[in-house]
Amino acid sequence: MIATSPLAPKRFPRLKNIAGVRLGAAACGIKKRVRSDLMVAELAPGTRIAGVFTLSSTAGPTVRWCRAALKGGRARAIVVNSGNANVFTGRKGKADVVATAKATAGLLGCAAHDVMVSATGVIGVALPVEKITAALPALVGSLKPGAWLDAAQAICTTDTFPKGATASARIGGVTVNISGIAKGSGMIMPNMATMLGYIFTDAALPAGVLQKLLKETCDRSFNAITVDSDTSTSDTVLLAATGQGKPHRKITRANDPALKDFRVKLEKVMVDLAKQIVRDGEGATKFVTVRVSGAASDRSAKAIAMSIANSPLVKTAIAGADANWGRIVAAVGKSGERINADRLTVSVGGTRITENGAPRAGYREAPVARHMKGAYIDLDVNVGLRPGRGTATVWTCDLTHGYISINGDYRS
Amino acid sequence: MIATSPLAPKRFPRLKNIAGVRLGAAACGIKKRVRSDLMVAELAPGTRIAGVFTLSSTAGPTVRWCRAALKGGRARAIVVNSGNANVFTGRKGKADVVATAKATAGLLGCAAHDVMVSATGVIGVALPVEKITAALPALVGSLKPGAWLDAAQAICTTDTFPKGATASARIGGVTVNISGIAKGSGMIMPNMATMLGYIFTDAALPAGVLQKLLKETCDRSFNAITVDSDTSTSDTVLLAATGQGKPHRKITRANDPALKDFRVKLEKVMVDLAKQIVRDGEGATKFVTVRVSGAASDRSAKAIAMSIANSPLVKTAIAGADANWGRIVAAVGKSGERINADRLTVSVGGTRITENGAPRAGYREAPVARHMKGAYIDLDVNVGLRPGRGTATVWTCDLTHGYISINGDYRS
Repeated sequence: MIATSPLAPKRFPRLKNIAGVRLGAAACGIKKRVRSDLMVAELAPGTRIAGVFTLSSTAGPTVRWCRAALKGGRARAIVVNSGNANVFTGRKGKADVVATAKATAGLLGCAAHDVMVSATGVIGVALPVEKITAALPALVGSLKPGAWLDAAQAICTTDTFPKGATASARIGGVTVNISGIAKGSGMIMPNMATMLGYIFTDAALPAGVLQKLLKETCDRSFNAITVDSDTSTSDTVLLAATGQGKPHRKITRANDPALKDFRVKLEKVMVDLAKQIVRDGEGATKFVTVRVSGAASDRSAKAIAMSIANSPLVKTAIAGADANWGRIVAAVGKSGERINADRLTVSVGGTRITENGAPRAGYREAPVARHMKGAYIDLDVNVGLRPGRGTATVWTCDLTHGYISINGDYRS
Repeated sequence: MIATSPLAPKRFPRLKNIAGVRLGAAACGIKKRVRSDLMVAELAPGTRIAGVFTLSSTAGPTVRWCRAALKGGRARAIVVNSGNANVFTGRKGKADVVATAKATAGLLGCAAHDVMVSATGVIGVALPVEKITAALPALVGSLKPGAWLDAAQAICTTDTFPKGATASARIGGVTVNISGIAKGSGMIMPNMATMLGYIFTDAALPAGVLQKLLKETCDRSFNAITVDSDTSTSDTVLLAATGQGKPHRKITRANDPALKDFRVKLEKVMVDLAKQIVRDGEGATKFVTVRVSGAASDRSAKAIAMSIANSPLVKTAIAGADANWGRIVAAVGKSGERINADRLTVSVGGTRITENGAPRAGYREAPVARHMKGAYIDLDVNVGLRPGRGTATVWTCDLTHGYISINGDYRS
């Protein structure tokens, strides 16, 4: 049994109820130990939905199913199993997704393509789909509003704590609610997508608007984190809007000024969930914020930030509380992005270490060493271009013995 | 003190003497413990030289110096310190390289730009160059032919064993010799270059020919290895030809058929050295060969092979002798390269695991599990394109607790 991450929040937050969403979980027997491994979220008729997915070329059949099913922009349910990724499982794997969707649709009285299906867990092992279909009737019978903790626990794999976040937002003077859950711990380097994340709102928003909002907020949340540079075959984030909250003015486009607060709050929820995934990074003992500025573009800044955040030498130095900032310089250098090495500056914990391509005159390591001993590490790098308006913020964790232990024998 | 790698060769090989090369080493005091940390190779007048270097944009002043000095195609000496990378050390760092070259040139009676300078070690700490210049006179006085082991030891940092390789080759019926030394253990993901490697031959070859031979053999040797995906700021490989061996027919171009055997043997020496670097990968307990075929091009195959070889999840599974081949599928998927997932095949230790996008009927894990327990792991992936003539071979090691221990507190 793996101990709870030292970076875990004290408790699961109280998530706001979302009218039109009913949740439930079950232990259907896919996970070896008796733990919940099946989650259903029922969505009220009329719910609109959007999604972003892994860019992996070996993505599983659930991802392909959702991509196709999303085209209608509507959904009535989300079904997730967290014991078996159902990836690289051939024709049976595809048939198992259809069977799961059909069984759920039959119970809810909707079409199969209104059921979004996700899976996470081991790759390349045939899914015991009959365990899912056998568990679904009782699970659907038990659905209720507000069962966020049950749902968040049921989608976990190597996670050491369930992840949830919530916010209210105003649309044209009317309060709407946003609540979301997510899972993720290892194989985290979402590529324009994420691990599993499900965000719900009672606002009434068309699918096209949801898709635009989701894409732009993902780039600054789930797509701005990395644990180990490994991108999953199952990464999925869905954003569902039930339209069952208080009536607000009609929204038809994503750039409607009335969405300003909603966009901010949606990003807040997604960043909160993304940071929780990093805080639960396999073996993590430190939470690291990497800020890059002075780059040629935001895209370039993010590539540099990810080069730092994914460097095993940077991550092990942080694990060892070693103020070895030279490794940050090396990680910037290997990014392949345009920089000015003579004006590159590195700050750790707010202490500026370098200027003019060398350590600052009178640089003292003591305050940096103190900062490195803490659990929250801030790395700030300006790559020295003029003008260099590109900036990015990325979150990651340290690389420790715990990561090796967890992943050296994950399946047994 | 770190124990010698379990993958180390039994002994340092007997390297063939190279006429026109005299070697020496000293402990000049840059390393904290008393260990040799300064190497000089003197090259006979008329020696031609070629080099490839790190593509890091934060490369150090030694790399910049060598790039400029190489333009003449001639060299009289190589000087290496292995205690301080002299990277990100500002104007002083640049001046220290010039001072090192000038001091050596004064002792050997050559021009400063005939002296190649390399450095490896900690980044961002001012080089105590006076220790080098103070040690050089006695060191130059002690130079002698054949001191390969001394030289190979003096360029080591976290290496647990010195690295050398040797071969003879025929050029137009005349035997010439090739001997080389290298260092490298962590921060190994050479990007069109390598860690430090110095190859010497007594053949008489012009600098342009050497440069072409070095570039093409590097791509299949030092550029085909990775330990931890981190590219160094100091990567340097130099190839020097003294022309002091037995006279052979004059060579003016790299595609001269008379160079066929020399090219093969040069690659053999460089692959041998590159594999030794992997065998000394920080914390390595297993040597991994990744072969990719069926790709769109050799370049694409290599990108996929590197995606597998750099995946922390693949490397930790290998460390744990876990036959979790699904992680190989995921690593292929995240490469971003074109593949056909339905025809992707994965073999481990010669056992074919998959067909038609799923595990083979009757796949038994036992032989794969046995292979995974060994020290030499073979991963073969065909990514299923038709036609897919792209192939690549890459070497790496597993990711273990040892890597974390070594790098969590490297400087102290």
